[in-house]
Amino acid sequence: MSFSPLVERLMESLRVLPGVGPKTAQRMAMHLLERDREGGRRLVETLGVALEQVGYCRRCRTLTEEDVCSICTSVRRDDDLLCVVESPADQLAIEEAGGYRGRYFVLHGHLSPLDGIGPEDIGLDQLEARVAEGAVEEVVLATNPTVEGEATAHYIAAQLSSLDVRLSRLAYGVPMGGELEYVDGGTLSRAFNGRLPFRGE
Amino acid sequence: MSFSPLVERLMESLRVLPGVGPKTAQRMAMHLLERDREGGRRLVETLGVALEQVGYCRRCRTLTEEDVCSICTSVRRDDDLLCVVESPADQLAIEEAGGYRGRYFVLHGHLSPLDGIGPEDIGLDQLEARVAEGAVEEVVLATNPTVEGEATAHYIAAQLSSLDVRLSRLAYGVPMGGELEYVDGGTLSRAFNGRLPFRGE
Ligand SMILES: [Zn+2]
Ligand SMILES: [Zn+2]
Repeated sequence: MSFSPLVERLMESLRVLPGVGPKTAQRMAMHLLERDREGGRRLVETLGVALEQVGYCRRCRTLTEEDVCSICTSVRRDDDLLCVVESPADQLAIEEAGGYRGRYFVLHGHLSPLDGIGPEDIGLDQLEARVAEGAVEEVVLATNPTVEGEATAHYIAAQLSSLDVRLSRLAYGVPMGGELEYVDGGTLSRAFNGRLPFRGE
Repeated sequence: MSFSPLVERLMESLRVLPGVGPKTAQRMAMHLLERDREGGRRLVETLGVALEQVGYCRRCRTLTEEDVCSICTSVRRDDDLLCVVESPADQLAIEEAGGYRGRYFVLHGHLSPLDGIGPEDIGLDQLEARVAEGAVEEVVLATNPTVEGEATAHYIAAQLSSLDVRLSRLAYGVPMGGELEYVDGGTLSRAFNGRLPFRGE
């Protein structure tokens, strides 16, 4: 025996969520159907709208339902600093650490030739054009301190080498092999202040 | 800083799911928006349809999108045995333990006067009418071995006392204070075989 076909389909579709196995999916389906249909309807509505309307900021590529995001339109941010991150979650972690007042550029990933992810897929043509505009004086390469993040930083450094811009990298206060989004604010903040010139060696 | 308003609303609405706190909701929202929009759209579609179409079986009250569920319509189940459970998840656990070939009745909860949940809210009028039809010879009271489950079993026993039907309760192989849905199949199976006459003392 199993649940009815539609309930089974619901449990299966809940497994699209990260960290959700069969038992958790069953508990979630039962909770929504037995105890919180109103909350379930709100989730359907909000997720539907978000999937339809949330796209990339035209200028920095972060997730937003606007054409240009609130950080890009803010007049209180420095145009001469540009921080390149792999994900909106990394960007949020840096914002929450405090202290950084420049702009951002979001890659949504890193170079990964084996997965067929090349420079255009992570917006590097757009990044180069942005820096070529001339306002940016320093690019902070805040990709993750992983093998892929390092390789991506090196690629970007080579790509921007002919442009008149300083490159820096977060100081290694951030633990090797870790993910920025899970680093505590104090460590991130110190890593930002201790950032070093990027040599691309 | 936070994410854009719509992304924040998505994270908030994901917290309707059991066991999902702020950090998990963020991870889920990022996963859906960054890496699996197709899976997200399937979830919207399936959850929407399930919330609209899945209701209670007219005969046993289990969750189903049909008018009457597959166990109630099956000709291979015994009409003289009726097992009363608190939830569809408990029913599934008993089915997966194997060995039981009777019918079911699903309460969707237990009596809880403090929460305003009375006999009609858990279908006890319908249960009495079902037993009064005369085909059922034994009612297995398989409510959870918790204070509320015990109280509900006693209430049902009193309600059915004037009818010509045997009452039994699962043997206490199931751990006190636990929830049926998490009991292993072997224990459940033994508890079923060792079920005792219910005295309602
Ligand atoms: Zn932007
Ligand atoms: Zn049924």
